[in-house]
Amino acid sequence: MQLGLSVSDSDVSSFTPLVVLELADDTKAEAITWLLNRIRDKQKNGGAELLVDQLLFPAQDGQKSNPNVFVVGSTLQRLLKGAEDVGLFKEFQDGIMRGFTYANRESFKDFYGDGEGFLSDAECQYIIKHELDTLRAKNEEHVPGYPKVKLYPGKSVVRRLQSKGVLVQYFPLHNKEDLKRLSFSWYKKIKLSFQPLDDIRHYFGEGLALYFGFLEYFTFALVPMALIGIPYYLFDWEDYDKYVLFAVFNLVWSTVFLEVWKRCSATFAYGWGTLSRKKAFEEPRAGFHGALGFNPITGREEPVYPSSKRQLRIYLVSVPFVLLCLYLSFYVMMVYFDMENWAISVYNENPNFGTGILLFVPSIIYAVVIEIMNLLYRYAAEFLTNWGEPEILLFSCSSFNNILITVFFFFVCFQFNFVNCFASLFYIAFVMQDMVLLRQSLATLLITSQILNQVMEAFLPYWLQRRRNKKVHKRMRRVMGDKELPLLEQVQLETEMNTYLGTFDDYLEQFLLFGYVSLFSCVYPLAAVLVVLNNITEVYSDAFKMCHVFKRPFSEPAANIGVWQLAFETMSIIAVVTNCALIGLSSQVKAYFPESETQMILIVVAIEHVLLAFKFILAFVIPDVPKDIQVKLAKLEFDSLEALKKRVSTHLYMCTYLQHANRKCDHLYDRPCQKVLHC
Amino acid sequence: MQLGLSVSDSDVSSFTPLVVLELADDTKAEAITWLLNRIRDKQKNGGAELLVDQLLFPAQDGQKSNPNVFVVGSTLQRLLKGAEDVGLFKEFQDGIMRGFTYANRESFKDFYGDGEGFLSDAECQYIIKHELDTLRAKNEEHVPGYPKVKLYPGKSVVRRLQSKGVLVQYFPLHNKEDLKRLSFSWYKKIKLSFQPLDDIRHYFGEGLALYFGFLEYFTFALVPMALIGIPYYLFDWEDYDKYVLFAVFNLVWSTVFLEVWKRCSATFAYGWGTLSRKKAFEEPRAGFHGALGFNPITGREEPVYPSSKRQLRIYLVSVPFVLLCLYLSFYVMMVYFDMENWAISVYNENPNFGTGILLFVPSIIYAVVIEIMNLLYRYAAEFLTNWGEPEILLFSCSSFNNILITVFFFFVCFQFNFVNCFASLFYIAFVMQDMVLLRQSLATLLITSQILNQVMEAFLPYWLQRRRNKKVHKRMRRVMGDKELPLLEQVQLETEMNTYLGTFDDYLEQFLLFGYVSLFSCVYPLAAVLVVLNNITEVYSDAFKMCHVFKRPFSEPAANIGVWQLAFETMSIIAVVTNCALIGLSSQVKAYFPESETQMILIVVAIEHVLLAFKFILAFVIPDVPKDIQVKLAKLEFDSLEALKKRVSTHLYMCTYLQHANRKCDHLYDRPCQKVLHC
Repeated sequence: MQLGLSVSDSDVSSFTPLVVLELADDTKAEAITWLLNRIRDKQKNGGAELLVDQLLFPAQDGQKSNPNVFVVGSTLQRLLKGAEDVGLFKEFQDGIMRGFTYANRESFKDFYGDGEGFLSDAECQYIIKHELDTLRAKNEEHVPGYPKVKLYPGKSVVRRLQSKGVLVQYFPLHNKEDLKRLSFSWYKKIKLSFQPLDDIRHYFGEGLALYFGFLEYFTFALVPMALIGIPYYLFDWEDYDKYVLFAVFNLVWSTVFLEVWKRCSATFAYGWGTLSRKKAFEEPRAGFHGALGFNPITGREEPVYPSSKRQLRIYLVSVPFVLLCLYLSFYVMMVYFDMENWAISVYNENPNFGTGILLFVPSIIYAVVIEIMNLLYRYAAEFLTNWGEPEILLFSCSSFNNILITVFFFFVCFQFNFVNCFASLFYIAFVMQDMVLLRQSLATLLITSQILNQVMEAFLPYWLQRRRNKKVHKRMRRVMGDKELPLLEQVQLETEMNTYLGTFDDYLEQFLLFGYVSLFSCVYPLAAVLVVLNNITEVYSDAFKMCHVFKRPFSEPAANIGVWQLAFETMSIIAVVTNCALIGLSSQVKAYFPESETQMILIVVAIEHVLLAFKFILAFVIPDVPKDIQVKLAKLEFDSLEALKKRVSTHLYMCTYLQHANRKCDHLYDRPCQKVLHC
Repeated sequence: MQLGLSVSDSDVSSFTPLVVLELADDTKAEAITWLLNRIRDKQKNGGAELLVDQLLFPAQDGQKSNPNVFVVGSTLQRLLKGAEDVGLFKEFQDGIMRGFTYANRESFKDFYGDGEGFLSDAECQYIIKHELDTLRAKNEEHVPGYPKVKLYPGKSVVRRLQSKGVLVQYFPLHNKEDLKRLSFSWYKKIKLSFQPLDDIRHYFGEGLALYFGFLEYFTFALVPMALIGIPYYLFDWEDYDKYVLFAVFNLVWSTVFLEVWKRCSATFAYGWGTLSRKKAFEEPRAGFHGALGFNPITGREEPVYPSSKRQLRIYLVSVPFVLLCLYLSFYVMMVYFDMENWAISVYNENPNFGTGILLFVPSIIYAVVIEIMNLLYRYAAEFLTNWGEPEILLFSCSSFNNILITVFFFFVCFQFNFVNCFASLFYIAFVMQDMVLLRQSLATLLITSQILNQVMEAFLPYWLQRRRNKKVHKRMRRVMGDKELPLLEQVQLETEMNTYLGTFDDYLEQFLLFGYVSLFSCVYPLAAVLVVLNNITEVYSDAFKMCHVFKRPFSEPAANIGVWQLAFETMSIIAVVTNCALIGLSSQVKAYFPESETQMILIVVAIEHVLLAFKFILAFVIPDVPKDIQVKLAKLEFDSLEALKKRVSTHLYMCTYLQHANRKCDHLYDRPCQKVLHC
């Protein structure tokens, strides 16, 4: 929590700015005053008790900059109390992660002095975000100055302002020094090393750190497969058709891969304190609107959403739309096959270098179209899910009601992308049974989509960003001359950066790569090599885009990769079936059963069942959480239940104590009291 | 907790006897004195603080009865404190199940006055058992009078005495009045009604109540299948071969059956307070010996067992033995087929009524042999698992280490019984493909094993018991003449009753019946009818045997049916595969694909995969715990974590409070203090 900058040296209320709040430049003065008062007000009066200050940009010739930009900070004490509100888990003296409380802050490890440096930057910003989000309307009926922006008791002020366009955005500020240090250790070093996951977590929060952890783990896991794949491919080690061994290796690999990841992820999440922290206990997302209700778990009054009605509407509208999209996918696939046939016929008529290259053109075009369609589908799915509810952000929903919606969105997106990417491959493999075309199609798809992804994800935004940076820089120089006002410039720059939309797209990309490798790499052993190469550059481009292309995102606490674990596991089951079917199609296996195809099929099916059973037994036998962490979690739970018992007891003791202190005091301290207390 | 009897009216320490303790009749006096003192001693001195009294039987002519029989009871206060020790969950004022604490006992529902009737009989006896089991040696090096019966600090006294034969047995006493009431509402009524599960739970504890709940649920679930099966069978509704529809129904049924049961079981267990109560937090089983260790969860010092060494030994010795047993099973099966063939040939030579009956003889003999082998295997498996560790009782192990052992035992038993019962049926169905023989074999197996089971389980023990009872009764009458000493007679009678060995055998029987129904009922639709009939009599015979044949067992807290859930689910997966295969074999399906067997197989395999996928999705979508109970559990957990935070805070407050009471007091009570306390 150390930022090099402060709002203004001369200001009495000087503080470290953590979050930027941008209001529309025509916001009415009374609304601004009201909002700032609410933010500054004491907690007991329903305020957020944060520090906030206006940033005044020097007047610029011609171009008018927005005057309504504010920076929000907080005292250390407020942040520590906020850490208790959001339910952060920190390492206790005894090495166990425990819910942080302000009262016994000094018993936590790494808490020295007044607690400077105890909370990471990302945590501080997360706390401020939480406090802003839970700043709720009291008795105001509308926002002052805006009679149409209605409020009711309990409504989140910030979200209402945001949905009505009064609040343009709010985002955490980068910390230039930390960022420099992080980016050096992360991707600027030439030395090959692990990613600094703990530093990433400190700077960006657990959600992103877990993504990069997964990316690294996945890449390392692919190395053995890539090493086996290279000789297979380069030296024609064996006939391509003899891929049975490779398929079996594939199966075992994909199962062990996912099981081990669960344990890794639990270890990460435990160390980061998110494993013990239960999502259900968090405050409801500030964005929910609808009537005020009663959260049955925490017993707090909070807005609830009538979910069943909304779900019904989503399903009714979405199902036809999804079917339409799937039809489109199949149509494009058929066009691709036509193009492919046409290219082959041209090549056959006149085989030379030009027409040889032409053979690859349909696949490349198809790959590009698939990427574009994936993108469109993603927006369509998001639109469908958010339809009419612009205030609810997906993928960060921690509430009961919204899990179903998230799963639904996920399912739609998953379906689109899965069908889009794999339909043609399945068709080629099992209907056309053309292994050569399968290999070629797979290679083209993989390479094209990788190149496109890297360009779209990092380089294009970076290039746009640089142009914008230069413009801002020049403008600032022109206005201010030699005056050094780095904070103003930084805020100006970051305000115009793009917003990072969460890890969904990144995971989706890895998921599709996992699909290519686990489903078809026995046919095209080089797939694993390509994916490894892709992921190495992916680490760099993703790291770069997080540090320099996008606005810093708010930290998202994450205990695991969520639905993606399920998605990867589903894929690995599909992989068992696909690999077994590919084995059944291989001429190598067919040669063993020259007379009876039926017998061959039965044996392949039997093997498949054994493999699936083996997979489930393996998943059952390997514990999801390593034993030492299980013990620690159980200890926490034991302590909690004991505490619950004791607490009511203590409360009773305290009551009787105050009435008959001399009789009961020895129960509390194992020694008799000397004086009596009367309150 | 109201028993009609008391030890002796004239005695000063008159109390309600709950548990009987029988020492060997040659036990040395000093050991008895020592043990009784330890049991009576205050808890703070390491005693159990229970009431105990010797039962003095009048001298009998000729036959000498054991003078060392004791009854154990307790004061109500001690029982309530014990309820806190064992971690009982009871319904709180707010309708949520919470860990019972003595301090706030009055805030629990159904707690009136001094708490009379708050704890059920079974709970009281469970608490006494727990207190006896956790009566640990202090500094004694051996049991007084027995220099060879070594003790070390922390060793359970009762278990050591039991393993050395000094303590013959200890068991809970029946409560004649309650038993009469229970048995009337349970099985003596003619009226058809649900079982009184809550009463059963009150009297026998959660483990048994859950078994009877499952038995009832299973029977009801079978009714629709039986209703469909009867017309199929009786009126030859359709050709037997047209069992495809029935097989599909089977699949859906078995999946839904298990999913719904999970919810039922959670509902039961929540209401009984066992769902929230975590096994891992219980005290370690008193029976563990080995060095003293440190339980990482509760932080208590307790004996631990070097489990890995033991596991290795078990596996090394067991695997060859298991293989041998399986070989034996197959050998017997082959002998059965030979007999079957012989019977058929005899019948074919001379078909008349006598030889017609002969056709069934091999199946009947085989069924009887299977039952005997099941019994032998069960003992073998228990022996293997317990080998060298006679002190450890299975199926009630709640500790970390022993779960693996239990699973192992279970697995061995499961394997034995599964192979034993189903091997021949699978062989007939898929190798011989003889549906007529399958039907006949299935019917004979089912009926024979049902009859055998009922006789072996209830009627034979009852007959033996009655003979014994009469003898005891006559003896008592002879000795005491007209003096009414019902307690003495009751103890005498119950001491000689057989011990109930737990629900394992009962569940195993249901599991095998479930197997017959779900695997093969499409071939023999009457199977469900037979199982329903069996289960109706089973309820009565099981209820009867619990009430009148066996000693009353100690209650076992159970939150679910444990490994059996997994076993039933595994069986239902096997059922999908088997039913699909049976569909593939049906002439009805074969007729659709007259030219291509390959195509037919591929389609059946595809359908099977879809069904399996459907099954997993269904299991994933249906929550295991009903939503209202989920909410209550989450609330408990939330409260616990909050309490843990507050507790340390309160503790800190209390400390500072005592130092600077006038400054801090307002934090505690929201109002300033008036006087200062110094301890």
